[in-house]
Amino acid sequence: MLRFTLFLFTFFVVTSQSLYSQNRIERMEPPNWWVGMVSEDLEIMVYGKNIGLCEIRLEKYDGVVLKEVKKVQNSNYVFISLTIAPQTVPGNLVFTLNSEKEAQVDFTYPLLKREGNKQHTVGFSSADMVYLITPDRFANGNTSNDNVNGFADKVNRKDKGGRHGGDIQGIINHLGYLSDMGFTSLWINPTLENAMPKNSYHGYAITDFYKVDPRFGSNELYKVMVKKAKEKGLTVIMDMVANHIGLKHWWMKDLPSQDWINQWPEYTETNHRKSIILDPYAAAVDRKTFFDGWFVPTMPDLNQKNQELATYLIQNAIWWIEYSGISGIRMDTYPYPDMEFMNDWSKAISEEYPLFTIVGEEWSTNPNQVAYWQQGKKNYNNYESHLKSVMDFPLQSALVNSLNSEKTWASSWIELYETLAQDYVYADPNQLMIFSDNHDMSRMYTQLNEDFDLYKLALVYLATTRGIPQLYYGTEILMTNPGTDDHGIIRSDFPGGWENDAISAFTGLGLSLKQKEAQEFVKKLLNWRKGAAVVHDGALKHFAPKNKEEVYVLFRYNDQKKIMVVLNKNTKSVRVDLSTYKEVLGEELIGTDILSDVKIKEASELTIKARSAMIIAVE
Amino acid sequence: MLRFTLFLFTFFVVTSQSLYSQNRIERMEPPNWWVGMVSEDLEIMVYGKNIGLCEIRLEKYDGVVLKEVKKVQNSNYVFISLTIAPQTVPGNLVFTLNSEKEAQVDFTYPLLKREGNKQHTVGFSSADMVYLITPDRFANGNTSNDNVNGFADKVNRKDKGGRHGGDIQGIINHLGYLSDMGFTSLWINPTLENAMPKNSYHGYAITDFYKVDPRFGSNELYKVMVKKAKEKGLTVIMDMVANHIGLKHWWMKDLPSQDWINQWPEYTETNHRKSIILDPYAAAVDRKTFFDGWFVPTMPDLNQKNQELATYLIQNAIWWIEYSGISGIRMDTYPYPDMEFMNDWSKAISEEYPLFTIVGEEWSTNPNQVAYWQQGKKNYNNYESHLKSVMDFPLQSALVNSLNSEKTWASSWIELYETLAQDYVYADPNQLMIFSDNHDMSRMYTQLNEDFDLYKLALVYLATTRGIPQLYYGTEILMTNPGTDDHGIIRSDFPGGWENDAISAFTGLGLSLKQKEAQEFVKKLLNWRKGAAVVHDGALKHFAPKNKEEVYVLFRYNDQKKIMVVLNKNTKSVRVDLSTYKEVLGEELIGTDILSDVKIKEASELTIKARSAMIIAVE
Repeated sequence: MLRFTLFLFTFFVVTSQSLYSQNRIERMEPPNWWVGMVSEDLEIMVYGKNIGLCEIRLEKYDGVVLKEVKKVQNSNYVFISLTIAPQTVPGNLVFTLNSEKEAQVDFTYPLLKREGNKQHTVGFSSADMVYLITPDRFANGNTSNDNVNGFADKVNRKDKGGRHGGDIQGIINHLGYLSDMGFTSLWINPTLENAMPKNSYHGYAITDFYKVDPRFGSNELYKVMVKKAKEKGLTVIMDMVANHIGLKHWWMKDLPSQDWINQWPEYTETNHRKSIILDPYAAAVDRKTFFDGWFVPTMPDLNQKNQELATYLIQNAIWWIEYSGISGIRMDTYPYPDMEFMNDWSKAISEEYPLFTIVGEEWSTNPNQVAYWQQGKKNYNNYESHLKSVMDFPLQSALVNSLNSEKTWASSWIELYETLAQDYVYADPNQLMIFSDNHDMSRMYTQLNEDFDLYKLALVYLATTRGIPQLYYGTEILMTNPGTDDHGIIRSDFPGGWENDAISAFTGLGLSLKQKEAQEFVKKLLNWRKGAAVVHDGALKHFAPKNKEEVYVLFRYNDQKKIMVVLNKNTKSVRVDLSTYKEVLGEELIGTDILSDVKIKEASELTIKARSAMIIAVE
Repeated sequence: MLRFTLFLFTFFVVTSQSLYSQNRIERMEPPNWWVGMVSEDLEIMVYGKNIGLCEIRLEKYDGVVLKEVKKVQNSNYVFISLTIAPQTVPGNLVFTLNSEKEAQVDFTYPLLKREGNKQHTVGFSSADMVYLITPDRFANGNTSNDNVNGFADKVNRKDKGGRHGGDIQGIINHLGYLSDMGFTSLWINPTLENAMPKNSYHGYAITDFYKVDPRFGSNELYKVMVKKAKEKGLTVIMDMVANHIGLKHWWMKDLPSQDWINQWPEYTETNHRKSIILDPYAAAVDRKTFFDGWFVPTMPDLNQKNQELATYLIQNAIWWIEYSGISGIRMDTYPYPDMEFMNDWSKAISEEYPLFTIVGEEWSTNPNQVAYWQQGKKNYNNYESHLKSVMDFPLQSALVNSLNSEKTWASSWIELYETLAQDYVYADPNQLMIFSDNHDMSRMYTQLNEDFDLYKLALVYLATTRGIPQLYYGTEILMTNPGTDDHGIIRSDFPGGWENDAISAFTGLGLSLKQKEAQEFVKKLLNWRKGAAVVHDGALKHFAPKNKEEVYVLFRYNDQKKIMVVLNKNTKSVRVDLSTYKEVLGEELIGTDILSDVKIKEASELTIKARSAMIIAVE
C-alpha cells in the first residue's frame, strides 16, 4: 500500500489564492556555511510554502554574489546559488522575499568562520586499526533518549530488529576502552535521523540529512564525540548513504521535482548486477534497473542526475566534515548511485580535504570490480574515480575460505595467497579496507565455526598484511550469531554497554576465560601494530604455500625493519626450512616473536606450533 | 633412480685419441628448410660424435651465407647459423667437415621450394567448431602399427593408461563423419614420438620433435591427413609442447649443454603458482620454481633461455606448419616455459604466418590470468603477448557451475552471466577457445550429472556465445567417466573406432536412443552454426537473469541478422516478457526456432518449455 500511494504521488498545484501569507521558511539546507572553503560555490535549498513564486534578493554583502535563484517543478522549493569570495567576513546573509500579495519577508543565513584547520584533516590509513560500531547496539550512555516523542520506533531490547537504546553518549563513555584495546579509528554506522516506523536502528534509511537521530543524541553531541575521540587517539569515520533515503524522509511528502527520486510505473528493485558497469554486453534496461531500481520498498532511490540533488548531497558531506571534524567517510552501496555523480561527490570532497579518506562499499569478491572504484585505476571505459579506499571483500572471502578449507592437492592457503597475488589490479592495495566481517555478514567467529586457533590466525593476518584493517565491535570477545544470519542477531548488544548487564566486556565481568584470552590477544596485537610502522607501509613479500606443509609465510619490510609472519594451519607443529626465505632473511633468523615474546635465533629451521601464528620482528 | 642418474649426468670429455674417424652426422634438425620464408635466418642443429671439434665450411651457394658455426658445451653438437636470401634457388647445400686427423667429410642439407601459399594459411576462428581428438583413443585405422619394434609401450586395450591402437589413419577414415556432424576443425592431441616405457598414449612426453610416433603413422601420413581433412572442410590444429620433453628424448643421453634443461640439486616440481607472473609480492624463489620446476619426474623441463634451444623450438613449430599444412597450434602449458621465449616463439610464427592461429593453454579460472596471454592485452608489467587465442577456462567453469547450481536469492545463471560480463579484461574475447570439457577433465555429461537437458543447454550456449567452440570427441554420444577422474577413463575409446566394436558412433550400431538423440542434436546445431555468420562475429548482448525466472537470454546481431537465444533452467515452462528485450527486438518477435523449426510470432510474451533452449532466428 505504501508503494502504491508513493507512485501515484501528484504534485500540489499552486493557485494564486493559496499564496497569501504563506512565505514561511521551513528549512534552509545546508543550515550554514563557512567562508574560506576551497570551492567558492554554495547552493542553498530553501523550503517554504510557495517560496518559488516569490522574488528573492540578497542584501549587499561584500564578497558574496547571488548568482541564481533556481526554481524547480515544486514551487515550495528554491535553490539559491551563491559564490563566496575567499576573504569574505563571516556573518549573516540577509535575503528578502517579495511576492505580489504579501509583505516583504526577510530571512538570514549564517556564514561562519572555519574552526581549526579542517582542510588539512588527515584521513585514516593503513596505520590505523578501525573499530566498526553499530551505535544502537554498542552502549546506552543516555537512557533518557531511548524513546523520543514523535518517533514511532520505540526501544525494545527483546526485539532483534528493534531499537536497543545504544547511543553516541555510550560511545563517548567507552572511548578509553577502545583506545586501550589499540584501536585508532571508529567507523560508526549511520547516526542521522531514521524516523521510520520500524527497524530504524540500523540507520540506513535516513530521513534528515542534517540531523543526528535524537535517539542517538544530537549534532552537537556527535561533534563532542569526535573531539573526545581525538583526545584518546581515535579518529571517526562517518557512515553515509547517497543512494537512497528512508520512505519517511520529509522530502517524500513534497518532492522538489518528480525526478528527485527514481520513479517507476510499478515498484522495481535494483537487480544488484554491479557487473553491468564494466560488462561490454550489458543491456540498457539492466543498466537502468541497476542504477535506478530501489534497494527495498522502504527506501526511495535518489536520482543523483538531478543537479540540485547532486549538489545537495555533495554539500551535505562537506558540511558534516567541516561541522564535526570527522576524519573519514564510509560510503554505503558505492556502485548503486549514478556513477558520474559519485565521482563528482568524491572529487569535490577530495578537493576540499586533500588528505581526507573515503572508503566505498563495493560488495563484490571480484577484485576487478572493486579496483574499478579506486583513485588512480586506469579503467578500460576511462572512468576515473576519486575514491582513496574501497572495502576489500575479495580478501575477506579468501581469508575465511582459506582458513575453513581442507587441504587439497595444494595448500589450503592458496586461495588467500592467490587473492593477494591479484593486487596488481588495484591502484593502491595498501589503501583498501580489510576485514573479516562487518555489520552485514556473519560474525568472524561464527564464520570460522568458533575455532579459536583460526580466529587468532585471521587476526594476525589482518594485522600484518597490506591494507587498513577493520574489526567489528565484539570481535575481541568472540561475539557470534550461531545458526542464523539474521542481521539483528549479528548486531547483538555489546555486553556491558547497558546498565546492569550481567556481562561486561569493559570490566571483564562475566567474560569466559576464552573471551578474556581473545580480548588480551587482540589488545596485545593491536597495541603492537600501532607502533609497527613497517606493517603500515612496508613492502610485502609472500611465499607460495607448499603442497602439504599448510604454512603461509609473508614478510613486511623497509630499509629499517623486517617482520616475518608465519601462519600455520597444520594440525602438527611444522619445521620451516629457512633457506626458502633467504632472499629476505639472509643466512639466519634472529628476532623476537611479538606474540610470545620469545627470542629466536635459528640458522636453518624454525619450528612453529600446530595451528598457530608467529610474528617475528627480525633483528 | 632415474632421477639420480639424470642429475649426476656428466659430460663426455673429449680426448684427442677419440677423434679419429668419428665424424658421422647422426642428426640434422630441422631436416630441411625452405627458401622464401619471411625470416631469412636458419640455425641447423647438427649432431655427430665430436663434430664440434671439426672445421665446418659451406660450399658456395648463391644466396646462402654461413654466418656462424656455434659450438656448445658438448662437442657432439654444432649449430650452423645461415641466412637464406629470398630469391635463392632450391637445392642441396653442401657442407664440408675437416679435422686434424681425418679425411674431409661432406654432408648435404636440402633447401626446398615452398608448396602452396602456406604463408597465407588462415587459422581457425570463431567461425569454426573444433573437435578435439586423443588419437590413441579415437579410431584404429591401421592395426599393423599397433606395436612397433623398439617401442616398449605395447598395445593393451584393457589397460586404461596403455596404448589402444588409435592412429592417424583412423582419423583419416572418419573425416566424412566429422564433416557431416558439422565440425570444421580438428585439434589433435600430440602425435610426435613418445618413446616412453609406459603411459605414452597421451603424447605429451615427446622424445623426437621431428617425427610422428610410428604407432600413430608417419610424418607423411600426418601431411596426408591434413590434406584430406581440408578436402572435407576440416582444418587441423596441432598440439605442441615447448615446456618439457619425455625423459627418453634422445637429447637426454647426451645433452648439448648442462643448461639445455632446468637442472636442480634434487628433483623439484613446479609449484603451479601461475599467479606469480602478475603477483607484485611474489618471491624470487617461487618464480624460479614455477618456471624451472618439472611437471613430473618423467618430463625434463626445457630451459628456453638457452638461445639455441629457443631457436630450435621456434623452427620446429614453423617446420611443422610449412611441412604439414596445419592451420593452427594448440600450445600446452603456455605459462610454464620461459615467458619471454613464449613471446618470441609466438611472434616468430605470427610473422611467418600472419593469419595463422595459436591457442595457448592457461588453466586458470581467473580471467585476468587468462587475458594476460592474449595479443593486444595491455599488461601492467608491459608484457606484450603474441597469442591470438587462449583457452577459456573461466567460462568452462562458470558454465558448468551455473548449470549445476541450485537457484539462490539470485538466478543460478548469475555465475555464467557475470563471467561473460568480465570480457572487458580480454583484448579479443571472440578469439578465446570455449569448451565444456577437454582431455584433462571430467567429461561434460559426467560434470552435468548425466542430465540431458543441461547437456543440451550447454551445447546451445557454446554454439551461440562469443568465442571458438570446442567439443571433445564422444561428447556427441554422451561419453562419460562415471565415478572417476582417471584420465585413462576420460579418454576412453570412441565406439566404432575399432574393428568389431559392438557399438559404433559412425554407423549408429548399438547406440542408445538417447545417444542417437544427442548425436542428432549436435549435428543439427553444428550444421546450423556453420552457416550462421552472425554467431561467428556478430555483436553480443545479454540480459541479466532475473531472480526467480531461471531464464538467461542473449542476442547475437549484426546489420543483417539477429539471433535470440533463450536458455531456460526452470523446471516449469516460463512466459518471457518480450518488452524486456525491446532495445533489440522492437515491438514484436517474428522468427523461427532453429532447434524445433517452429515459426514464432509474438508481441508480448514468449513461452519456453521447462529446461530447454530456443535459438530464434529473428526476421
